Order: sequence, then C-alpha cells, then structure tokens
Amino acid sequence: MNLQVLPSILLLVSAVHAFQYSELAQYVDNHQEDYVETLREWVAIESDSSNVQKRPELHRMMETVAQKLRLLGGTVELVNVGEQELPDGQTLELPKVVTAQFGSDPSKHTVCIYGHVDVQPAKLEDGWATDPYNLTEINGNLYGRGASDNKAPVLAWIHAVEAYQALSMDLPVNVKFVIEGMEETGSNGLDAMILAQRDTFFSDVDYIIISDCGWLSRRPALTYGTRGNCYFFAEVEGPKQDLHSGVYGGTVIEPMTDLIGILDTLISPSGKILIPGIREAVAPLSDEEWRLYQDIQFDLDDYKNKIGVSQLMYNNKVDLLAHRWRWPTVSIHGIEGAFSDPGTKTVIPAKVTAKFSIRQVPDMDPAIVKKQVTDYLHSVFAKRKSPNKLKVTMVIGAKPWLADIQHPLYEAGKAAVKRVFSVDPDLIREGGTIPIARTFQDVTAKSIIMLPIGGFDDGLHSQNEKMSRYNYIEGTKLFIAYLNEVSQIKTTSV
Amino acid sequence: MNLQVLPSILLLVSAVHAFQYSELAQYVDNHQEDYVETLREWVAIESDSSNVQKRPELHRMMETVAQKLRLLGGTVELVNVGEQELPDGQTLELPKVVTAQFGSDPSKHTVCIYGHVDVQPAKLEDGWATDPYNLTEINGNLYGRGASDNKAPVLAWIHAVEAYQALSMDLPVNVKFVIEGMEETGSNGLDAMILAQRDTFFSDVDYIIISDCGWLSRRPALTYGTRGNCYFFAEVEGPKQDLHSGVYGGTVIEPMTDLIGILDTLISPSGKILIPGIREAVAPLSDEEWRLYQDIQFDLDDYKNKIGVSQLMYNNKVDLLAHRWRWPTVSIHGIEGAFSDPGTKTVIPAKVTAKFSIRQVPDMDPAIVKKQVTDYLHSVFAKRKSPNKLKVTMVIGAKPWLADIQHPLYEAGKAAVKRVFSVDPDLIREGGTIPIARTFQDVTAKSIIMLPIGGFDDGLHSQNEKMSRYNYIEGTKLFIAYLNEVSQIKTTSV
Repeated sequence: MNLQVLPSILLLVSAVHAFQYSELAQYVDNHQEDYVETLREWVAIESDSSNVQKRPELHRMMETVAQKLRLLGGTVELVNVGEQELPDGQTLELPKVVTAQFGSDPSKHTVCIYGHVDVQPAKLEDGWATDPYNLTEINGNLYGRGASDNKAPVLAWIHAVEAYQALSMDLPVNVKFVIEGMEETGSNGLDAMILAQRDTFFSDVDYIIISDCGWLSRRPALTYGTRGNCYFFAEVEGPKQDLHSGVYGGTVIEPMTDLIGILDTLISPSGKILIPGIREAVAPLSDEEWRLYQDIQFDLDDYKNKIGVSQLMYNNKVDLLAHRWRWPTVSIHGIEGAFSDPGTKTVIPAKVTAKFSIRQVPDMDPAIVKKQVTDYLHSVFAKRKSPNKLKVTMVIGAKPWLADIQHPLYEAGKAAVKRVFSVDPDLIREGGTIPIARTFQDVTAKSIIMLPIGGFDDGLHSQNEKMSRYNYIEGTKLFIAYLNEVSQIKTTSV
Repeated sequence: MNLQVLPSILLLVSAVHAFQYSELAQYVDNHQEDYVETLREWVAIESDSSNVQKRPELHRMMETVAQKLRLLGGTVELVNVGEQELPDGQTLELPKVVTAQFGSDPSKHTVCIYGHVDVQPAKLEDGWATDPYNLTEINGNLYGRGASDNKAPVLAWIHAVEAYQALSMDLPVNVKFVIEGMEETGSNGLDAMILAQRDTFFSDVDYIIISDCGWLSRRPALTYGTRGNCYFFAEVEGPKQDLHSGVYGGTVIEPMTDLIGILDTLISPSGKILIPGIREAVAPLSDEEWRLYQDIQFDLDDYKNKIGVSQLMYNNKVDLLAHRWRWPTVSIHGIEGAFSDPGTKTVIPAKVTAKFSIRQVPDMDPAIVKKQVTDYLHSVFAKRKSPNKLKVTMVIGAKPWLADIQHPLYEAGKAAVKRVFSVDPDLIREGGTIPIARTFQDVTAKSIIMLPIGGFDDGLHSQNEKMSRYNYIEGTKLFIAYLNEVSQIKTTSV
C-alpha cells in the first residue's frame, strides 16, 4: 500500500472515520438482540471436539459458520484437512476448516482473523447451574459452553463485517477468516493446511488477528504472549480386565497404585515441577519484564476471591503473574478407566490412564519435554519393579508464542481500545495456549496480535462458562474500530 | 426336632431321598430353558444400587422377586426399611426387603436363605463384549451384570423350592427367604430390619444359608469366612469451581496434586499397607490354617493366566491365598470430580474425591480402622501445608465373618456336593465381603453356611460378568440336595 499523502488529507480521513465509527456503533447497539440470538444458535450445537461421538455436531457447526459467511457475500471454502487417527487405530474425518474472504483491494491491508468454534466437554451434572448448551442470560451474562471460548468472539468479528456492509460502508481493510473446529484438542490438520495454503490464501495476508483469550481485569487488554502445552497420557495396564477388589485384592499389584505412585513424582506439595530439566529450560525474567508486570492492573485479593481459595501459590503480583504466564506448570486433569461416578464400586481397574499437561514457555521445546517426561516416568516406574506395563504418550505438543509489543499492530490496538473504552489497555500474556499463534508465526512469518474481548471471569473450560452481553457488544465495536486503525498502519515497504 | 429313630429306618429314609433326588434333578434338567429365561428377565432390570438415578429400577426388581415368590405360594412381604441419606443431605427411599416363607412345620428344621438382587454398575463402554443388561449366552456362559452376583443363585434357590412343589414332594425343611437390594453398597437398612425381626421372622430359623460367592477352582467349595470392608471417600476441595489449567495453572495449589500425594502414602510399591496400626491388628496365621491352605486345590499359574498378569504379589499358594482371604488390602478404585472421559481436557478440577477401600479380617475393627485412616490422611495432608480442604468419610464399615468348619451345616454341605458332583468340596474363604453374614451371626446367633454355586472365573464386579449354564443348573440341584441333607441334621437339644 502506498501512503504518500499530505497531512491535511490524513486529518480529513481521520474525521470521516470518526463519523463512521459512531454510526457503526449505533448499528451494533440496535442489533444486539440478533447477535445474542445467533450466539444462542451456535452454543446449541454441541461441538465438543474431544468427544468423537460428537463429531457429527462438529461437522454441522462448521457448515453453520460457512453458511453465515456465505450469506454475507464472502468467498467461502470448506477446506478438507484429512482424518484423525484415534488411539484404537481407527480414523475419523476431521471437521473442515472454513476460510472466507471479504474484499481483495490491493490498495488495502489484508487481515486474517483466526477463531475456533469447537468447545471443551460440558455436562449439566459437572455442576452447571444451567444447561451448558442452552444459552441462558442471567444478570447480563450469557451462560453456555463455548460462549466466550470462542463462539462469541468469532461472531463479533463476523458482525463487525456485517455492520460495515449494512451501512454500505467499504471495509477499511480486506478481511479473511480462518475458522477451525479442533482447537480444543490441538488443531489437528490445521498446521498442514496453513502450510499448504501459505503461498495462496495466506500470500496477501498482512496481519493475523486472534481473539481467543480474555482480559485480565475489567480493563481491556492486548495480549502479546501465550504458553504452549504438552499434554500427556500415562497409561498403566495390569490384569486383562477389571477385578473385584474383594476377590482379588492382595494378590495383584494394582495399576492404580502404580499410576498414583508415578503421578506423585511430578510435582512437589508447593507446586514445584520435579521432572529434571524442565525448570532449567525457562528463560530468566528480565528487569524490563519485571517492571512491565509491576505496572499491570491486578489485584491479588480479587483474584483469590474470584477463584475461591484461601491462599495462592505466590503472594505478590509479579511472582503470581510470572507463574501464570511465563513459567511452566504441571496440572493433573484426571484418570480414565478408574471408577469416577458417584457412589461406591469395589473394583480394581485393569487399565488406567492419567491425563496431565505441562504448560510451555520460552525457551522450552515440546520435543525435548516429551523425552524428559517419558524418560523420567519410565525411570520412576522402573524403581517400583511392577509387573504392570507403562505407556507414556504426548498427544498435544504446542509451542509458546511471544510477540513484539512495539509493533504497529499493538499501537493500533491501543488506539482502538482508547476509542471504544476510553482507557489504555493492559499489555498482558495468556497462561493458556493458542497453538495456532505459533504456527502462524512460524509458517506465514506474518505479524500477529491477540485482541481479546472475553471477560476476566468467563470460566473458560469450567462450569458456567459465560460471555457478558457488555463484552460481546462492546467487543464487536472494538473490532469495528480496530479494522479502521489497522487500515492506517503505514507499511515500511512503500 | 426329635430324631429318635432306628438305624434301619434311617437307611430307608435315605433310599427314599435318593429316589427323590434323581426325579428332582431330572425336573431341573427338563426346565433349564425356563430358568435361563427368568434369569434373562432379571438381568434386564438395571438394579444398580450405587446409582441413585437407577432407584426406580431397583424398586421394580424387588417387586419382581416378591411376585415370583408369591406365585409359588409363599407368604411374602415387602418390608419397608426406611430411607437412605445421600451425601448432599437429601433422602431416598431404600428398596424394600423381600421376605418369604414356605412351610411352617414345627417338626422340620427351618432354613433362611439370604440373597441380593442389586448389582454393581456396568456400562457397555467399560469394555463389555455384550450389552451388560441383555443376558447373552456364548459357549455355555450366560453373560450379564448380576448374572453370578447374585441373581442366578437367588433364582436357583427359588427353582429348588419350585421343583419340590412341581413334583408334589414335601419340602424337607421349612424355607424362608430374605432378599435385599442394597448389598453392593453396604446393605443399608438391612441390619436394623434383622434386629427388628429377630424375635419374629427369625425366631424359628435354625440355619442361615448364603450363596453370594464362588468356587476357587473347578472343584465345588464351601466357604467359611469372608473379609469385611471399610470404604472411604477422601475429598480435597480447593477453588470454588473447575479452572482452565492454562489460565490458572501456576497460581493455585491444585486439589488433584494434593489428593494424589496423600493417596500415594497408603500403599508401598510392593502392596504393603502403610497406614499405622492396620497390619498389627491382623490375627497371626496358625499352623492348622497353613496346613488347610496347603491342601486346597489351587494352581498359581492358572490364576495368573486367568487374570492376565505376568507376576502375582506372592509366588506360593499359601501366601497368595492368605493375602487373598485373611490379610487386609487397600484398593484405590478411582476419583470422582476429575476428568475421566476419553480425549483431552485442560481442566484443574476444583473438588476431587478418591474412593478407596480396605478389606477387613480378624481381628480388625472398622471403628478403629476409620480412626486410623482418617488420622493418618489428615496428618500426611497437614505436612503438605496446602490451602485446600480435606474431608475423609468412611461410607461402608463391614466386619469380617468366620464360621466353624466342624459344624453339621458344613458336613451337610460336603454330603450334598458329593451327591451332585461326586467330589469332596474345598473348604475356602472369600476375599470379598458379604457384610450380612456377620450381622446374621451377631444379631440372630444362628449358624451360617456359605454355599457357593458361582464359577471361579465369573468376573464379579468387572466387565463380562457371567454365570455358566452348568453352574446355574447343577447349582440348582445342589440346593435341592442340600435342603435334603439339612433335614437330616440331628439337633443336640432333643
């Protein structure tokens, strides 16, 4: 894009944009009931990507997204990304990836918006106050699985485009979409698809925008880093089938005892990772980083109250934020194959599989972590001299991602936040993983920004996930404003 | 009963009985398809007593039993045994206990047959080859949840009575039934019911017979002891709801880490119980007991192959049988509240409850074990200095039971086995728990025998539970023969 223009003309352009924004914002306010209704339809589709039995729902979800984008006149494709191999050796068709394009004006910047419409598992009996797949509004919050992660943000982007169109305003940038359906289980197939389309779909993309995260407080935020994640299955197999614990207890070394024993060697009581080599790989905290963390608006007591614990792992803001964002963590999620229902069952489970994951930060490398964890668990298991068999598998290996906060994309983000919310955003990182950020960076070499609209208390991956109506609607306005700001980025290569 | 009879008359009586037996056995053979069909109907009722949502099925099961006994002309009652308190404080109606009586001739002995018709949980996806609630015959085995534990044995007793009736033969003894529906979860309400009816229903009972167990090998067995069971819930509660492990990991001490940590202090890698005081309470193995164990038909390699492990906890018969029957064991059954489905979920579970149980043997006392376990877990938890909360509950506390193998009931058992199977039975104990045996002993002071007909490989409490057609049908004959043998027991008080 060539921007050889005079200062006076730039001012004029700026004034026109300001005018456009308030009209667009008004349009959004007027259509918020429609937006909520569409979110309700999307949440009603149980697009749980981790449950193979829900795969038909997931396919239906992708078709719904494609149809929505087609109705807006986009050039839409449902890209086949192949099959998924299941642990039992069978294969299952992956949900197609939806790509779309609005505008192809070479004089404009082109942004590519990434989002996902698959969700984490959710069942009413997990402790939800409302049916997780029936969007329910209570006190301005829209409760439902996937509401915040990531269906409402995807819809907000689509509605941003729609608003420009409805008011017959030109989109200030060309807008592309890449919407996938396997994010929650590691974005299977997407890496290969990005690589395959690097020189086609992605060739004219200037910037990539991801809104799959949330604010840190009530203050809007821009996100410049995420942790990666290595997800492990540790399976201990003993007898050929489950046994009655009365009839057989005392005659076999039980797989559960072995599994509990090796899991207990992962983390110290205070939360320290005990796997050799993991902590040594972490980049040291710089003074600059320390200062940045000091400036962030974050109240430890609020955080403690929000999650409902009497004591946090660290008692000062910098340590807590650093361990949330830039240090690795081990979390043990659960055990498959053992008795997990209410009530009592006197069983010796024959094969039990622990699920745990280790969040990744610079300069950890998932390939090395995989070996460290596998070797370590096999060595502690060997010491038990158990007749049972251990199998360790890394099923997800996602790298961390870190952006340059001096980049114009972040300046544009600050301006857009200021326009819509009249405050400066916090510059934050994300403890969670958006693996695709790293892939976009590595494969396309484009600049990336994470522009969240989710609230700090949305309950992602847990019971009672919600998106507030305020964040959903104001977030749509933020996206409208942001497209505008991005259009004004001066490229260095004129 | 007065048995002042001459030897010659006894011989005649014996001859008449022999004749009756072959007619009865023929009747059983001729009706085996009907017996299998009735078992199919009973297995189809999902009478899982541990799952409160299945309670209506359990009520239907008890009504089915009562109706079956009514049709045979028994005096049947459905005894209300009150309500069950659930962990959340709500109450739920307990399944009624079915009592029945056939005959009240004061010149005959009276036996009381105890059985249960509730079952352990079972789901096809646990790894069953067939629908657990659709009785399926494969190679002479009848697969289905509850087939062996304990529906077929209960039916075999009922069919034994039916056979005498069908051939218009007098029952050689008066027969009473006590059939309950809460055995798998601790026989709630039954203790109180037995106590309440001690001087009414149980007042004329001479002997109690329980067939809720199995043989040790292909050789029939009589069982003279069972282990008790103390079942514990250890709940660790942290955040007020589940958290995303990326967003929150590194800032909270996770309840799963704490729970794994305390569970790992229960048992050593070689299976040794680490809770102070437990092993010290066990009665020492006598020389007599050692010799009895030596004589039992039991092949370690067969056992190893049957359960499919490469190595057992003990490598000689006596140690293995002793640890199966007369030493305590700790089994960790599973964890409620953690992620247990297939696939991946990046959750920090907020509240996790481990389920484990400790089999009880003489001279352990559940009341003391409860205190030992609770104190121990709280002490190891305290050392972790965790901000999370631990709650330890003992939800089942069943004492062990041991009979005198010199008692005439056991002599009658040997004779009946000899008649039907032409071999001498093994005298064995049972690693599992039939809590009611101990209650009958303590409350009624009657003599008790356990007369199993289940096979050694029936897979109780595990996937693919089955009852072989052979054991079901020959077992019915054994019960017919046993009633006859019991009628000939000479009471000492004439």
